[in-house]
Amino acid sequence: MTDPDAPTANDPVPDARLGGDLPIATPEAAAAIVPETATLLVSGFGGVGYPKLVPEALAAGDARELTVVSGGGVGDEIDRDLVESGDMARRYPFVPNETSRAAANDGRIQFHDRHISRLADEVRFGGIRAGMRGETIAVVEAVAVGPDWLVPSTSIGHTPAYVGAADRVVVEVNRAQPVELARVHDVHVRDDPPNRDPIPLDDPLGETDGPAVRFDPAKLAAVVETDRPDDPYEFRSASATDEAIAGNLGDFLEAEIDRNPLFAEAANLQFGVGSLGNALMGALADVDFGDRPVSYVGEVVQDGLLDMLDAGDLEGASATSLALSTAGQERLFDDIERYAEDVVLRPADVSNAPELIDRFGVVGVNSAVEVDLYGNVNATHIGGTRVVNGIGGGGDFARNCRLGVIALPSTAVDGSVSRIVPLTPHTDHTEHDASVIVTEHGVADLRGLSPRERAAALIEVADPSFRTDLDAYRQRAADEGGNTPHDLDTAFSWR
Amino acid sequence: MTDPDAPTANDPVPDARLGGDLPIATPEAAAAIVPETATLLVSGFGGVGYPKLVPEALAAGDARELTVVSGGGVGDEIDRDLVESGDMARRYPFVPNETSRAAANDGRIQFHDRHISRLADEVRFGGIRAGMRGETIAVVEAVAVGPDWLVPSTSIGHTPAYVGAADRVVVEVNRAQPVELARVHDVHVRDDPPNRDPIPLDDPLGETDGPAVRFDPAKLAAVVETDRPDDPYEFRSASATDEAIAGNLGDFLEAEIDRNPLFAEAANLQFGVGSLGNALMGALADVDFGDRPVSYVGEVVQDGLLDMLDAGDLEGASATSLALSTAGQERLFDDIERYAEDVVLRPADVSNAPELIDRFGVVGVNSAVEVDLYGNVNATHIGGTRVVNGIGGGGDFARNCRLGVIALPSTAVDGSVSRIVPLTPHTDHTEHDASVIVTEHGVADLRGLSPRERAAALIEVADPSFRTDLDAYRQRAADEGGNTPHDLDTAFSWR
Repeated sequence: MTDPDAPTANDPVPDARLGGDLPIATPEAAAAIVPETATLLVSGFGGVGYPKLVPEALAAGDARELTVVSGGGVGDEIDRDLVESGDMARRYPFVPNETSRAAANDGRIQFHDRHISRLADEVRFGGIRAGMRGETIAVVEAVAVGPDWLVPSTSIGHTPAYVGAADRVVVEVNRAQPVELARVHDVHVRDDPPNRDPIPLDDPLGETDGPAVRFDPAKLAAVVETDRPDDPYEFRSASATDEAIAGNLGDFLEAEIDRNPLFAEAANLQFGVGSLGNALMGALADVDFGDRPVSYVGEVVQDGLLDMLDAGDLEGASATSLALSTAGQERLFDDIERYAEDVVLRPADVSNAPELIDRFGVVGVNSAVEVDLYGNVNATHIGGTRVVNGIGGGGDFARNCRLGVIALPSTAVDGSVSRIVPLTPHTDHTEHDASVIVTEHGVADLRGLSPRERAAALIEVADPSFRTDLDAYRQRAADEGGNTPHDLDTAFSWR
Repeated sequence: MTDPDAPTANDPVPDARLGGDLPIATPEAAAAIVPETATLLVSGFGGVGYPKLVPEALAAGDARELTVVSGGGVGDEIDRDLVESGDMARRYPFVPNETSRAAANDGRIQFHDRHISRLADEVRFGGIRAGMRGETIAVVEAVAVGPDWLVPSTSIGHTPAYVGAADRVVVEVNRAQPVELARVHDVHVRDDPPNRDPIPLDDPLGETDGPAVRFDPAKLAAVVETDRPDDPYEFRSASATDEAIAGNLGDFLEAEIDRNPLFAEAANLQFGVGSLGNALMGALADVDFGDRPVSYVGEVVQDGLLDMLDAGDLEGASATSLALSTAGQERLFDDIERYAEDVVLRPADVSNAPELIDRFGVVGVNSAVEVDLYGNVNATHIGGTRVVNGIGGGGDFARNCRLGVIALPSTAVDGSVSRIVPLTPHTDHTEHDASVIVTEHGVADLRGLSPRERAAALIEVADPSFRTDLDAYRQRAADEGGNTPHDLDTAFSWR
């Protein structure tokens, strides 16, 4: 039933890219098996590890009405080309690409952002029922494939769940990525509720399974060969504001390490995706963690983590994606065996599992568009209406971590807009989930504060040019009363 | 080190209410050990199992500045008397009592509502840092106590964590409650992160530990004897609207059971606390669940569950509180050995643990103040400002359940206010967590719908007299654009 040559935990690296007699196809032939109405479940997370040639061929081919479900961020062949060709009708759970984001905001595609940790279950148990239209086809990138297995490439995302849920499976085997990526992967597949077992990890860096994603061999419809590299996000370098935020975060963490028993034995840290997240990771090198092991327990390995690993500042990293810049990918690929000792990628429903984030007492650091006076966090919508990216795994970590930090600049648009606002017009993380807010002006430690107290603390980390107006709002709101005071008439026109 | 006579899983019922040589004290003497500034960690959940005489003596005694942290809802001796006496300065995580709620809304006490599942960790790891003032004293009700153990009474709540975190422990032994309640309790205490083990339950009704809450004997400062009964909430009987909502929910569940593999082997259901929750539980008796076992996996056993148990419609119930009416308590107490076969109470960080809600594929049904056109849910704040109760365990279940239902009447205040609104001024459960909205007018199945599509679906379950205005808002918002369209100028003045 299962291929004896499939890679295992003990012997992870496949002997060949193509293991056995496989249905090799051109991208066009593979695209042709996708019916006019279909749901594509694609690999990819953090802008890497996504299929490239089959989506490109779909965009160039006949008109279709497709639902596209990825693990996280993917590249232009999906989120630009399929939008421009008019083939993408529906999209989950993330739109980091300018083209798909504009289409969502214009109503040309129907988009909903979903918690990353939940998607593996959602495709099986109806969580995105309205989107699961037509035949379900998984299109996933791999570094190697056999008759009933594949080894993911630069991200795992939800590939195991997607090939499990799909009616048919199309695999793109990418020779531009080293087959030794197999050493990084730990593909644990969860059972279904109500008989779901706990995830068998007692160490954030532990490994329990091999690199193989298994599937029913009858599903394998096409294997396409490619050597096109990922086109990962390029992060901007850290600004002076980023560095000031990182400094404040570092000072806070050092004080907390001394007083909080959470850090008695280890520090397990998560940072969100993006340029600020990357800068914050880099700044950790200056924090004195004492003798305790420090690990990254999150979604994405960014360039800043490679620096920490190289400097010996980090025990290791657990994530679901190698969301590195092109330079970072080269660095990792050139020394993959060494990095594989300290880096493990997991399926996204494991990397982001509430139970693991809880078990390992993770300190979660995520960013936001804006925060209101009571600690409600808008992480996704500019002006409350226009989506940027989506919630991603931010909610998984913000809710389940033991200490939750939201780090953000105090202003946007060259200082003309405050990111500390009276009332978030869109809320992704509620006041119950954000504990500590860090800006370049300081740290608002909201733990145990009542809403009124929170407002006072947050005004102190707002940009000085907005503090008077925010305080005037706070006063007007207090006059109206309530445990969470608001003057709703001016909540959105406070300035 | 540990008392050999302590009750165990095999021999749960203590021989005596008072096991050994204990520091028996009057309520006044016990109250006298509480310093002027202190943090009281009190037992109680769902309005039952709370300490009565010591809080009453505190209210009658010297002026103090107390932080009061309960598991959930407690009685008048705490949330009325300590407020009226001016001794309560700070309160977490719930204010179901009229007096404490008014004080929170007036700013006389500093209150913040917290996720129930998190409090056990929060008191140990600084999650409510600003509230943990002075000495920490646990004051808890028990049906029996020994030198280093106690058996909780009608609720467990966070008693194990609170006696663990406290500097000193005061126990009220209540003879008004049967010592056989020991048969109902399964006190599993979680390890600390980052070396936390999974909760060792593979069955929602499984039992792993005995009824004893253990503590360091050096902490036991006073034992007070009482026979004052609980003063539980009295739920109103079901209204015609409740019954219409229950009917719509039942129809939805029957359809879902047939099509969703989540229900292949079992149905594990949770209902929120309150009169509507109780009515919805009762209505389950009319749903055809086929041969599969049906269990309640939630926070509170309410009267409606006893009916289902008696009728043989329910395999059993797992919760943290017997939140029964006075009549329901009598019914349970009179037949405690029989009910104990099918009912298990757990600490609230276990009953509400994200990992268990996930593992058992719970269907969560909770209520709300209002829901906005995009599925954001305000469960706590009238007019966005005045808190009612608090979030309680609603967020634990809404986020982690496999299928999340929000059930609510379409209007409030005798039909003059729509509970379907353009924008919630306060958000407790985000659009990512609410999947299905049920009112007396129907079911809005939001799964996979984009925000625009959600708005259309939700207007259909609003009260007919509000649909035209809601649709006019939806149109105005759509003209403004965005993935989640809003016209923020009229979002709170839409009518």
